[in-house]
Amino acid sequence: MAIWLEQASGDFEERFSAFLSTKREVSDDVNAVVKAIIDDVRARGDAALIDYSARFDRVDLAAVGLRVAEAEIDAAVAATEPAVLDALRFAAERIEKHHARQMPKDDVYEDSLGVGLGSRWTAIDAVGLYVPGGTASYPSSVLMNALPAKVAGVPRIVMVVPATGGAINQTVLAAARIAGVSEIYRVGGAQAVAALAYGTETIAPVAKIVGPGNAYVAAAKRQVFGQVGIDMIAGPSEVLVIADRDNDPDWIAADLLAQAEHDVGAQSILITDDRAFGEAVEQAVGRQLKTLSRAETAARSWADFGGIVLVADLMAALPLANRIAAEHLELAVADPDAFIPGIRNAGAIFVGRYTPEVIGDYVGGSNHVLPTARSARFSSGLSVLDYVKRTSILRLGPEQLAALAPAAITLAHSEGLDAHARSVAIRLNRGG
Amino acid sequence: MAIWLEQASGDFEERFSAFLSTKREVSDDVNAVVKAIIDDVRARGDAALIDYSARFDRVDLAAVGLRVAEAEIDAAVAATEPAVLDALRFAAERIEKHHARQMPKDDVYEDSLGVGLGSRWTAIDAVGLYVPGGTASYPSSVLMNALPAKVAGVPRIVMVVPATGGAINQTVLAAARIAGVSEIYRVGGAQAVAALAYGTETIAPVAKIVGPGNAYVAAAKRQVFGQVGIDMIAGPSEVLVIADRDNDPDWIAADLLAQAEHDVGAQSILITDDRAFGEAVEQAVGRQLKTLSRAETAARSWADFGGIVLVADLMAALPLANRIAAEHLELAVADPDAFIPGIRNAGAIFVGRYTPEVIGDYVGGSNHVLPTARSARFSSGLSVLDYVKRTSILRLGPEQLAALAPAAITLAHSEGLDAHARSVAIRLNRGG
Repeated sequence: MAIWLEQASGDFEERFSAFLSTKREVSDDVNAVVKAIIDDVRARGDAALIDYSARFDRVDLAAVGLRVAEAEIDAAVAATEPAVLDALRFAAERIEKHHARQMPKDDVYEDSLGVGLGSRWTAIDAVGLYVPGGTASYPSSVLMNALPAKVAGVPRIVMVVPATGGAINQTVLAAARIAGVSEIYRVGGAQAVAALAYGTETIAPVAKIVGPGNAYVAAAKRQVFGQVGIDMIAGPSEVLVIADRDNDPDWIAADLLAQAEHDVGAQSILITDDRAFGEAVEQAVGRQLKTLSRAETAARSWADFGGIVLVADLMAALPLANRIAAEHLELAVADPDAFIPGIRNAGAIFVGRYTPEVIGDYVGGSNHVLPTARSARFSSGLSVLDYVKRTSILRLGPEQLAALAPAAITLAHSEGLDAHARSVAIRLNRGG
Repeated sequence: MAIWLEQASGDFEERFSAFLSTKREVSDDVNAVVKAIIDDVRARGDAALIDYSARFDRVDLAAVGLRVAEAEIDAAVAATEPAVLDALRFAAERIEKHHARQMPKDDVYEDSLGVGLGSRWTAIDAVGLYVPGGTASYPSSVLMNALPAKVAGVPRIVMVVPATGGAINQTVLAAARIAGVSEIYRVGGAQAVAALAYGTETIAPVAKIVGPGNAYVAAAKRQVFGQVGIDMIAGPSEVLVIADRDNDPDWIAADLLAQAEHDVGAQSILITDDRAFGEAVEQAVGRQLKTLSRAETAARSWADFGGIVLVADLMAALPLANRIAAEHLELAVADPDAFIPGIRNAGAIFVGRYTPEVIGDYVGGSNHVLPTARSARFSSGLSVLDYVKRTSILRLGPEQLAALAPAAITLAHSEGLDAHARSVAIRLNRGG
C-alpha cells in the first residue's frame, strides 16, 4: 500500500520532505567496468564490439554483421502488424508537426550604434540514438528521440540497439524506418556508447548521444561527456495526479498504475482534498493491480514509492507540486486553468479529466522524454533545441569599434589583461 | 614558438588530428576530497563553511559574517574608479538589451483535431553564481552570468565568492550591484557549491549553479549535478583566427596574445594562406610578448598550444574550423560573408578586421561564456535559455480523446504496457 501524508498533521513537513528525498534508484558503481570497456573500444574498435556483444548479448557480430541491413529493416516492417504501423505513423506525424514549431529562429540585427549582432542556429552534425534491448525497447521512444533530430535537420542520425540473444525488437526497427533512421548498428551497452563517441572502423563518431539505457549505458554517457554531448540521464518515471472528488476513482487508479508498471522505481502520487476519494482510489488500485500483466512491477512501485497526499484545499497542492517537480502532472480537477499559472515546476501538464498522461507517451505530439527526479526545477523535456546549437555573431566597422573601444579597454585594464586592451587599442589609430 | 602545420604536406591529417586532440588541462583527481567536503557541508552546514574558509581562504567567517552586508557593497562601489563603473554600466546595458531578445515565447495552440498543445517557459526559481577569487575574479563574468538570469526573470540570484585572505575583489562587488545581485556570501571552493546545492542554516539552496571555477569547483559541480542543474564545465579559452595577407600582422598577433594571456592552457590558432604573413604574425607575437604583464602565461600558452596552419586557399580553412569548433572564431578576411555560411561549429564568430574577440569579452552585448574544448560541435554559449525551463501542456476533451485513443491503445499493447492501455480505454465509455 502507498504511503498516506496528511497536510493537517503536525509532522507533515518532516514526512513530506523525507518522501521527496527518497532515493528510487539503486546506483551500482559500474564506473570502473565501464571505463575499461570504453578504453578497450578505443583501442580495438570493432573487434572489441564483437567480443563484448558475444559476451553480453550472446550474438556473433562477426557472422551477422555490425550494421543492420536495409533488407532486415524491410523485413521488420513487413513483420509488424499493420495496425501498429498505422499507429506509429499517426504518432510520428503528430510528433513531427508539434516539434516543427520548436525550431528556433536566427536573430541577426544591427543595434543603434550600427553594431551587428546575431544568434545563428545550426543542427548538430551527427547524433547517436541509444535504444535499449529487452523489455525496455520501446518503439515510441525511437520516434520521440529521432524525430526532433530530423526536424532540427541533423544530417546524420545513427541508432544503436543490442541484439540480445541475436534478436532486435522488430517494431523498433519499423519505428526507425518511419522516423527516417537507416544507419543502425546491432550493439548496445557501454561498448555502443564508446563506439558512438570515439568511432570504430565501421561506426563513424557522432557529436551527441541521446536515449535511455541501463546503469552501464548511463555511466558510459557520463564518462564520454565532453568528447560528445549527451542528453539528460533519465531516472525512473513519475506521475503526480491532482484530483478532486468528482473523478471516477477507477480512472485515477488506472493513471497511477500506468506509471507504476514502468519500473519498480517508478513513482505515482495522488494529491486530493477528499479522504474518502483517496481511499476509493487506493481500493481501485488494489483491484486493478490483479489484472495487470506487469502486476508485480506495478505493485512494488506503488508499495515502495506510491503516495496519497491529503490537503485541506486543492489549491494547497500547488506549492507541494512545485517541490515535487513531477515529470508528469495531471490536473483532474473541475477548473484546471485555475491551477496552471501556479505551477512552476513540471515536465508536462495534462489538463482535465480526459487527458491521461498515456496520451503524451504516444500520440499527443509533445515529447515523452521529460525531466525526472525533481529535475523539472531546472531542466526541460527533449526538444528540437537539444539537436541544434547557437553561434553568436558580432560585427563591427571602424566607427563601431571606436564607440565600444574605450569601455572595453577600461575593463581589460581593470582586470589586469594588457593583451586584451592592446588587441582593441591597436586598431584605433587606423580605425578611429 | 607555436607549431606550424601545412596542409600541403603529406602528414598533415595525422599532425592536425594530433593537434586537435592535445589535452590542454591537467585534470587532477580531486573527486575524493570534494566528496568529503560536500558530505561535511551537508552534515554540519555553516560550521563546515566556517572551518573550510579558515583553512583554504584564511578568513574567519564567524567574525566577519557569511553574508556580505549591503554596506560592504556600497563601499565597494564607492571604491571603484568612476571610469570602471561607467564601463561596467555601459557593458551591462548592452548585455541586457541583447539577451532580452533571447527570451523564448510560449506557444499554446489547438491543432486540427482540437487537441490543445503548448510549450510554456518559466524562470528557474533560484540560481547560484560562482565567482572565483584571486586573479580569475572577473567583474565582466559577473555581468555575463547574472544578467541573463535577471532577463529570464529568475526571482532569486545568489552569488558566492571566496574572500581569499579576507578580501573580495571590490570591482566584482560593484559589478554585482550593477547586475542587481544583492544576496552574496563570502565562501568559495567545493564548500560553496555544496552550500548552494543542499543549503545550510544561512544559505537557502538553489536549483541551478553556474559560473567558472578551479578543479575543485568543477568537480563539486559535477558531483551535485542532479540535485541541482549546472552550466557547462568550461575549459581553457581558445581563439581561431582565419586571416588573409592583407591584415596588419600586429593586429592579429595582439588577438592571439589576448587569448594566450588568460591561461597557460589557452589556445590561439591562426589559419592563413600566406606563409610570409604567418611568419610576420609569429614575429609580431614574439615582439609583443616582451611588453605584457602576463608575458609568462602568454608565452607558455603560445609555445605549448599555439598553432599556425598554412592552407593553399582560405576557403579550405572552413572544414578545419568546423573540426576545431573554436570557442571564438575571428574572420579577418576581405569577404567574411563568404565564410559564414560554411561555419557550422563555433561558439562565436567575430566578423571582419575591426571586430577583435576582446569586444565580445566585454561590451559587444553577446555572452562571453562560450563552449570550449570542441564542445561547440554540440553546445551553445550561455543565454537566457539556461535560466528557464519548458513545460509541455496537453489538453484533450472527450472528442479529442476518442480521436487519439485507438492509436495510443494499439501502441501501449504492442509495448506490453496493459495499464497504459487501460488508462486510455477506461475513459472511452463515457468519453466516446
